[in-house]
Formats: sequence, structure tokens, C-alpha cells
Amino acid sequence: MEFSSKLLENAVNEVSQLPGIGKRTALRLVLHLLRQPEQQTLELAESLQMLRTQVRYCKNCNNISDRELCEICSSTKRDRTLVCVVEDIRDVMAIENTGQFKGVYHVLGGKISPMDGVGPSDLNIVSLVEKVKLGEIKEIIFALSSTMEGDTTNFYIFKQLEGHSIKTSTIARGIAVGDELEYADEVTLGRSILNRIPFENSLKGS
Amino acid sequence: MEFSSKLLENAVNEVSQLPGIGKRTALRLVLHLLRQPEQQTLELAESLQMLRTQVRYCKNCNNISDRELCEICSSTKRDRTLVCVVEDIRDVMAIENTGQFKGVYHVLGGKISPMDGVGPSDLNIVSLVEKVKLGEIKEIIFALSSTMEGDTTNFYIFKQLEGHSIKTSTIARGIAVGDELEYADEVTLGRSILNRIPFENSLKGS
Repeated sequence: MEFSSKLLENAVNEVSQLPGIGKRTALRLVLHLLRQPEQQTLELAESLQMLRTQVRYCKNCNNISDRELCEICSSTKRDRTLVCVVEDIRDVMAIENTGQFKGVYHVLGGKISPMDGVGPSDLNIVSLVEKVKLGEIKEIIFALSSTMEGDTTNFYIFKQLEGHSIKTSTIARGIAVGDELEYADEVTLGRSILNRIPFENSLKGS
Repeated sequence: MEFSSKLLENAVNEVSQLPGIGKRTALRLVLHLLRQPEQQTLELAESLQMLRTQVRYCKNCNNISDRELCEICSSTKRDRTLVCVVEDIRDVMAIENTGQFKGVYHVLGGKISPMDGVGPSDLNIVSLVEKVKLGEIKEIIFALSSTMEGDTTNFYIFKQLEGHSIKTSTIARGIAVGDELEYADEVTLGRSILNRIPFENSLKGS
């Protein structure tokens, strides 16, 4: 793409570095901003600068927070001995939406993924192991996505925790509520049969 | 969506005001920026601020330009009596890519669209009519997209130019080069038959 303006070219190049946004989409977005009041662009830019430079992470769970300790970790109603290990804040938001979890979280900040250059030291794993060593945790629930990377990360952490007497579990995999069996993939259906649960338990949480 | 951080919420809200970007995508983009070096976000924000506050438009064609007169308008090789009317800079870039046009452009900055609150006075139509009145232009080529809004805009400008002895034309609509007739829509195929061209002309421009 050849641009008639260096300013425009710079902006398009920067925007197109965002994941899933190509040069054409970036140009469309930037032209949209030019048609809007100047204020909108300045507010957008400022909100990104503010977030990136002033963002803080909860010192207990590493979730994004404006305070030293996030709302969940500082709540007296939450069980801090029950820890749900998740990838990022989106998973926290999703689980919070269910209203079914009364423990606290531990946000890893990603999954182990050698392909993307993400190793165990890039994630908040050490602080989780520390908490276990201090005897603060009774049960850990792994809630990473069940991909190769998620499974690797679960297993790595599981290995680190060997020798400590805590319970570990993973969230149940199975057929989604309301889904038809005939359209389910074999792996999921297979696991849902192997890991079947007592019928009376299935009446909870609805 | 409930956020654990006001800073994060602000950034997501601002990003989700961009067209075609919902809250979920905005959150994904913002979390991506948080995982990248701080410099990337600051450069992105700065490039948007710079563009929005310092952008200039060519005083002849209204195209985005870093100079008073854009490269095309200041070139001695271009025919300034032949003007192609387009919606925005993307159309200029597309036509320039063909290498087939030796005139100059007139960028309207949009199309007349009452649904979106865009009237004739929001577009650079007056300056085009002025140029015609001054006798600077011999032929105008309408190259807006052939939608309801594009046709309305073409017709509005055409009416404004009545009484002035200039040639007006629109770019040819027809079956794209390489396309199969059987998959063409009826309107396009119909027009391409009505507006057929002498065979010898079809040998040009390839």
C-alpha cells in the first residue's frame, strides 16, 4: 500500500500490529477516526496510554486491578484456600458471571507455548507454588482451555506441586448444557462418559 | 461486562467505539497490548494523536496529504482538467494502483446518506462546483460505489453542474475481468449488455 501521507501511514502501521487487524482494516479504522470529532481519538489514545503505564496487578492473584488487592481477593466472603487457576482476566470474568465459584483466582497470564516463545518463567507460576508451600491453599482447580498448551501448563504446575498435600481438580469437560449428543465431537463425548457423575449431582447448579 | 479495573474498562469502552469492534474483541486487543512492551502501546497512541491533530488535506483535491498540495495535484504529468470524483483516500489508492488514470482526483469525504446523518454540506461538493465554475475542469468521472447513497451523491452533483459545459461520465459497471457470466448478478449483467463497448476498445488497458 502506498500512502499519500506519512502520518496516515504511521497510524495504519501501528494499528495493523494488533492481532487480527490487517492493513486494510487498519486503514478503515483510522479513516473512521478522522471523520469523528478529534476528542474521540484523543480519548482513545489517552485511555490506552493510561492503562499501559498505570495498570496494576493484584498482589495475590495477579488479576488486573486498580488496587493492591483486587475486589475478589479482599472480599471476606471468598474462600482463599480454594484457588482456581486461569489464563487471563477474561476467564475470571466468565467464571464470575456464573456465580458458582466462591473461592479466589490465580491468573497465570498465559499458557506455556514454546511455539509462541512462552515458557514457564513468563507465567505467574512461581507465586502459585509459593502459596502452596506456605500452606495457604487446600484445593487448586485447573480451568485452562483444554488445548495442547493448556494441558501442558496444567501438567507442569501439577508436577511442581508434587509432595504437597493439596487437592487438585480440573473443571469438568463434557457436552454443553442444551447440546445434542449427535453433534458432539468424539473426544468430548468419550470423556463425558468416562467422567460421568452421580445423577443427584447433576441437579445442582442450574 | 463487569471489569475489575476502571482503567481497563475505559480502554475497552474506547476501543469498542471503533466500527466493527465489539466489547469482546476490544478486550482481546487491549489484553494483547498489555502483554506487549509498553513502547508499542505508546507508539500506537502517539501515532493516532499525531494523525488526528496534524492531518492536512490537499487544498485542491481534499485528499489526505502532509503538504498543502498532494503529490498527485502537484505533479506536472497529471491532467488537471480531468477530475475523478471519489469517496475517500482508499478509492484514490485503488485507482492509482491500476496506473490507468492520468487526471487528478476530487475526494468528497463520504457519500450523501440521510440514514447516517450525512448531507451534501458535510461533503466537499461546493469546492468541486467552484472549480467547474472557474472553467478549470473539462471532464468529471464519477467513481463512487454504485449503491443507493453513491447514486444519490452522483445525481446531486450532476444537478449542481447543470448549465456548465463539461463532460460527465461514470466508471463502467460490468462483469469483472476473469468472472464467469453464470455467477454474475442480473443487474450487473443487464447493465454490461446495455452499455456494451466497441470490441476494439476492449483490447485496451490490459
